Amino acid sequence: MNALRIGLIGTGYMGKCHALAWNAVAPVFGDIERPRLAMLGEADEALAARRARELGFERATGDWRRLVADPGIDVISITTPNALHAEMAIAALKAGKHVWCEKPMAPSLAEAEAMHAAWRASGKVAVLGYNYIQNPLIRHIKATIDDGTIGTVNHVRIEMDEDFMADAATPFTPRSAASSGYGALDDFGVHALSLLFTLFGHVRRVFADMAKPYADRPLAAGGRRAVENHDAATMLADVEGGVRAVVQLNRAAWGRKGRIAVQIFGSKGAIVYDQERMNEAQLYVAEGPVAQQGYRTLLAGPAHKPYDRFIPAPGHSLGFNELKVIECRQLIARIAGETSVLIDFDDGLRMERALHAAAESFRAGRWIDVG
Amino acid sequence: MNALRIGLIGTGYMGKCHALAWNAVAPVFGDIERPRLAMLGEADEALAARRARELGFERATGDWRRLVADPGIDVISITTPNALHAEMAIAALKAGKHVWCEKPMAPSLAEAEAMHAAWRASGKVAVLGYNYIQNPLIRHIKATIDDGTIGTVNHVRIEMDEDFMADAATPFTPRSAASSGYGALDDFGVHALSLLFTLFGHVRRVFADMAKPYADRPLAAGGRRAVENHDAATMLADVEGGVRAVVQLNRAAWGRKGRIAVQIFGSKGAIVYDQERMNEAQLYVAEGPVAQQGYRTLLAGPAHKPYDRFIPAPGHSLGFNELKVIECRQLIARIAGETSVLIDFDDGLRMERALHAAAESFRAGRWIDVG
Amino acid sequence: MNALRIGLIGTGYMGKCHALAWNAVAPVFGDIERPRLAMLGEADEALAARRARELGFERATGDWRRLVADPGIDVISITTPNALHAEMAIAALKAGKHVWCEKPMAPSLAEAEAMHAAWRASGKVAVLGYNYIQNPLIRHIKATIDDGTIGTVNHVRIEMDEDFMADAATPFTPRSAASSGYGALDDFGVHALSLLFTLFGHVRRVFADMAKPYADRPLAAGGRRAVENHDAATMLADVEGGVRAVVQLNRAAWGRKGRIAVQIFGSKGAIVYDQERMNEAQLYVAEGPVAQQGYRTLLAGPAHKPYDRFIPAPGHSLGFNELKVIECRQLIARIAGETSVLIDFDDGLRMERALHAAAESFRAGRWIDVG
Amino acid sequence: MNALRIGLIGTGYMGKCHALAWNAVAPVFGDIERPRLAMLGEADEALAARRARELGFERATGDWRRLVADPGIDVISITTPNALHAEMAIAALKAGKHVWCEKPMAPSLAEAEAMHAAWRASGKVAVLGYNYIQNPLIRHIKATIDDGTIGTVNHVRIEMDEDFMADAATPFTPRSAASSGYGALDDFGVHALSLLFTLFGHVRRVFADMAKPYADRPLAAGGRRAVENHDAATMLADVEGGVRAVVQLNRAAWGRKGRIAVQIFGSKGAIVYDQERMNEAQLYVAEGPVAQQGYRTLLAGPAHKPYDRFIPAPGHSLGFNELKVIECRQLIARIAGETSVLIDFDDGLRMERALHAAAESFRAGRWIDVG
Repeated sequence: MNALRIGLIGTGYMGKCHALAWNAVAPVFGDIERPRLAMLGEADEALAARRARELGFERATGDWRRLVADPGIDVISITTPNALHAEMAIAALKAGKHVWCEKPMAPSLAEAEAMHAAWRASGKVAVLGYNYIQNPLIRHIKATIDDGTIGTVNHVRIEMDEDFMADAATPFTPRSAASSGYGALDDFGVHALSLLFTLFGHVRRVFADMAKPYADRPLAAGGRRAVENHDAATMLADVEGGVRAVVQLNRAAWGRKGRIAVQIFGSKGAIVYDQERMNEAQLYVAEGPVAQQGYRTLLAGPAHKPYDRFIPAPGHSLGFNELKVIECRQLIARIAGETSVLIDFDDGLRMERALHAAAESFRAGRWIDVG
Repeated sequence: MNALRIGLIGTGYMGKCHALAWNAVAPVFGDIERPRLAMLGEADEALAARRARELGFERATGDWRRLVADPGIDVISITTPNALHAEMAIAALKAGKHVWCEKPMAPSLAEAEAMHAAWRASGKVAVLGYNYIQNPLIRHIKATIDDGTIGTVNHVRIEMDEDFMADAATPFTPRSAASSGYGALDDFGVHALSLLFTLFGHVRRVFADMAKPYADRPLAAGGRRAVENHDAATMLADVEGGVRAVVQLNRAAWGRKGRIAVQIFGSKGAIVYDQERMNEAQLYVAEGPVAQQGYRTLLAGPAHKPYDRFIPAPGHSLGFNELKVIECRQLIARIAGETSVLIDFDDGLRMERALHAAAESFRAGRWIDVG
Repeated sequence: MNALRIGLIGTGYMGKCHALAWNAVAPVFGDIERPRLAMLGEADEALAARRARELGFERATGDWRRLVADPGIDVISITTPNALHAEMAIAALKAGKHVWCEKPMAPSLAEAEAMHAAWRASGKVAVLGYNYIQNPLIRHIKATIDDGTIGTVNHVRIEMDEDFMADAATPFTPRSAASSGYGALDDFGVHALSLLFTLFGHVRRVFADMAKPYADRPLAAGGRRAVENHDAATMLADVEGGVRAVVQLNRAAWGRKGRIAVQIFGSKGAIVYDQERMNEAQLYVAEGPVAQQGYRTLLAGPAHKPYDRFIPAPGHSLGFNELKVIECRQLIARIAGETSVLIDFDDGLRMERALHAAAESFRAGRWIDVG
Repeated sequence: MNALRIGLIGTGYMGKCHALAWNAVAPVFGDIERPRLAMLGEADEALAARRARELGFERATGDWRRLVADPGIDVISITTPNALHAEMAIAALKAGKHVWCEKPMAPSLAEAEAMHAAWRASGKVAVLGYNYIQNPLIRHIKATIDDGTIGTVNHVRIEMDEDFMADAATPFTPRSAASSGYGALDDFGVHALSLLFTLFGHVRRVFADMAKPYADRPLAAGGRRAVENHDAATMLADVEGGVRAVVQLNRAAWGRKGRIAVQIFGSKGAIVYDQERMNEAQLYVAEGPVAQQGYRTLLAGPAHKPYDRFIPAPGHSLGFNELKVIECRQLIARIAGETSVLIDFDDGLRMERALHAAAESFRAGRWIDVG
């Protein structure tokens, strides 16, 4: 395969993360042509030029449509705010580009469905940026489940918590407006669903509750404004394969910074994981003398592929950004028609349907089947 | 106050725990008359005599009614299987004895209400054995919440998990029969509710889901029998004071032995606790430089009263049995008309109403107000 | 065996601990005659009487010699300050009593040797209060080492740390005077040696370093006084069986409350333990797929005898005081001529010789063979 | 400053790590010219060409002397086996290149001194690859010490443990030969000294002990060969500023993968860190109510610079490789004459002198002053 030519739209949090991944993927893996960082799109020409220089892109533009239309680009990373995803992704797919879009697809289900339709029509690769599923330990957890080490899984708990909305004094921003979505449910819920999907399958039935830790927030200009969405949410879910899941989401949980705590219980053992300690997993297997049984802390190492591509020694810690490098390598494999683990627009859409069903459940106060 | 004269009915798990507490309470606290261990009741005379000798009781009987009727007894510890609580407690209260009954009150709400009525009529003290609330660190957590250290609490999570039902090969026992109750919901749920009540108040509204990890279990005589209750349950609850709670209960959670994991989130901080490490609590306070904030592990010590009555040095670990000694001291205080922290038949009944409402919610698939 | 008749001298920290153990040992184990708490000795009659009433002793005396001479006493718990051990233990042994003396034997080696000689002459049982070795998990660790699970042990680390001397503002007390001993070396070192001895054997060669975190301390009356011993010490030791040990002791280690952190490395695995989490041990066994290897957290439970005598359910936590109950049961077994795990005056003396050799090593700046 | 032109010699473990850092440093920091990856040197032309392509270098050579002589190179990363460092570094400095050499300097003190002399003569920058000191949390720990938060530090413990030599069945390799050095003492000891130096200063006096867990190892060709160096070592050290340190090093410690456990005790608090959880540090400050004191777990975040250059959100984990990116940025600063935290050939030489003094101490069985 010739070197892929990359376009990047957006250079915020995840935009930089994409840029770092495109820079690192070839030296890390050593088995692909180094992608050409062809063009960077930002809100205006000056910013675009500055960021291109910083991040190593050859060209820059203040008009994302020019980037999408450029014939010298094969793949487009879309890392702009969620509300812009649909328009950009659809345009990119129509222009015959592969798309790597940050999660979630879009605030509304209708937009997500339009993205899905555009993908179906395009014949191109379109995947979503669910990086947590790329952790070698998550891969290992999946393998451990699939080989029966913990028996048949019956129960899963996921908690995703951060604290960026925990301070009552944090002013009202668009994040608290209804237009940005349901709140924690879509902000965090998609990550939880990406793990459930990767490990077990899609959600079939859901019940949800949501909560507002703070009814209103201060306005910069003075006065207060009612918060329109929910910083905390709980989902009960029936998942394919007979797994029952409880998902708790809270972006107002003081002291939690990047917690994604997973507990998986099976008929022969259990697995526990927390993203805040992303280089550790805990495994319990009910075998051997009772006096010697216990949760075992696995430290990530070369035995957990592709950790070995980054570091030859165990226990030396991968970082968050490196998960995106793995995702990038998976995307390149997908484009080359090779096996890969990714969430495409099809599975992504199903996950977002589950979220919207959850929101409906909250309004109705009862269980909802996911269409 | 003269030395209390104690009767004990039942010498299983909690019966021995009561006996140890009655033996230890005077030397530990050093501020009360040593109770007289007057009479022990067991299933037959021989067993009763043996246990009385082992546990230090003066007299023994194979007929609990004789114990209840004995004029030389002031307080009766009832530690028999749940199905026997109501008859015994009612008889004891009618006989003018104070009652210390292990949790929960009874399998059916009707029986619990009858116990409550008997208590009201008796003028005696009647309390339930919720020992986890007696942990000095739980007291400290309550004080920390009450003094505003973590601001206004908005969200609480409790997980209670053990693994005694985790093995699919465990035979069908009465514990899996409908007659023993709902399963994890009442087996474990009352402990979770005891903590919620102690820290925040009673549950006002509840939604519940329950699950059977195993549909049936082997019979000793061959064949299999359908499991009639649920080894796992989840409750969403609105609690007095505006706290939202998520309670997860699982007695089939491999590797969990005595986990009661509590997470409390407030507007200024958070507190985390796990009964498996009952001498530790974690406190996060959102103050000072961000770079120096973090969850702080408090090790139980003399500063957490009444730890100091057991050990003068910090970090030396109280044990599970010692919580019952504290509960015993609280009971003696209650009988003496002094301030005490205990769950009496009134609050106990309200907690059991919440459980029955949860079961109704599961059947109905919707939220239920607790009467 | 008839009920043992107990005398207790001293009711401070460990005195109360002994009293609790004598009260609890029969109901906990259920297989022995309840000891009779015959007489308590304290500094004066009034205090002795008060404590006897609190702790459940029948008689009291302000003169310990009367207690030692009393024909109605079989065993004497000696829990007074270390400087008094020798005189009391020797008198008790001469009076034909069994002796249960708190550790260490005595500040000077000469006194310890005199105690040893008195014991040899007496034909009685004389053991020291090394309670940490009684933890069911320490027993389990020993069994795990002995059965070869971690192969041949080659390296051991022990850290014992508390912080009661960590505050520079803590006034000068006798604890900082040379007359009280070397400092951390004897204060803590004996505990570390008790673990080394229990698990591996005696120390044969030692090198030590000691440090004074604070050169002087304030006097209550004003002014300051030079600290005469060392709050921190390190010992390198060759232990019987070819084990190399590094022992670190610090009573000025802020935030450590009862830390006794043990790391044991063998040819096939490792074991880690920390007394601050006395219900947990960690076991690493180098077997099975590398990707599934890790330190396994064992939670104390009935499989670790005699935990089962205290609580029938795993993961429910024993406490520090309960270790003394186990030690008490061992003492009763020893008196009855049964198998027991205890440190008697012979092994205790060898341990104290190792400490004095360590002190000599520090002065000389070289390795010293333990005589 | 113009873009630096980089030469890299060696592409093993640390060679790849350097290559990843040179690729990432500009996009991560965004404030420097992207370095030009000019030439890569490996053992032969074919391998060099392949690695150059993988790692993104423009040119390749099988002869490191050509690389050193190339006028189109400004900085040379030397990541070859330790025995080659001296010759290459001296040649590079003589050729007027800046040198970034992996630790340690060289197996013998004479070589290290020659490297030092070449550096003094060159006027160029020459630094060593001590990446652990670049962790934002280590920087934060240093700042926390320097601002007095934990008072005056009096005692430090460092343990560095891995298990790559733990298996007795691991064959004899050059690592076990005397020619490769002392064993754990220099293999790991330099890392421990780099932390001591960064936080406190140089070692002034040292006592050491070393141990061989296995006396011999199997040879591939059959038979066994005596192990010539020591897989475990302990150093007691007096450090500048009055700090006493105990350093334990073990490359045969089963289950430890990248442990560098640091404990720092001061007059007002303590700090604890473990490289296996490199995104966490623990801080204890002896202030506020005793009941609320405890070790506080700090999770790395943007408040710990330059974490923010990698990820804008806290608690999302940096990785081991990213420490090298920070080191790379420090090197660029050093070359530009800006402030930087690095270990140059001067401090590096002093650290290696301490190691050789430790080895002498072991031989002599006494304390040795570091020259």
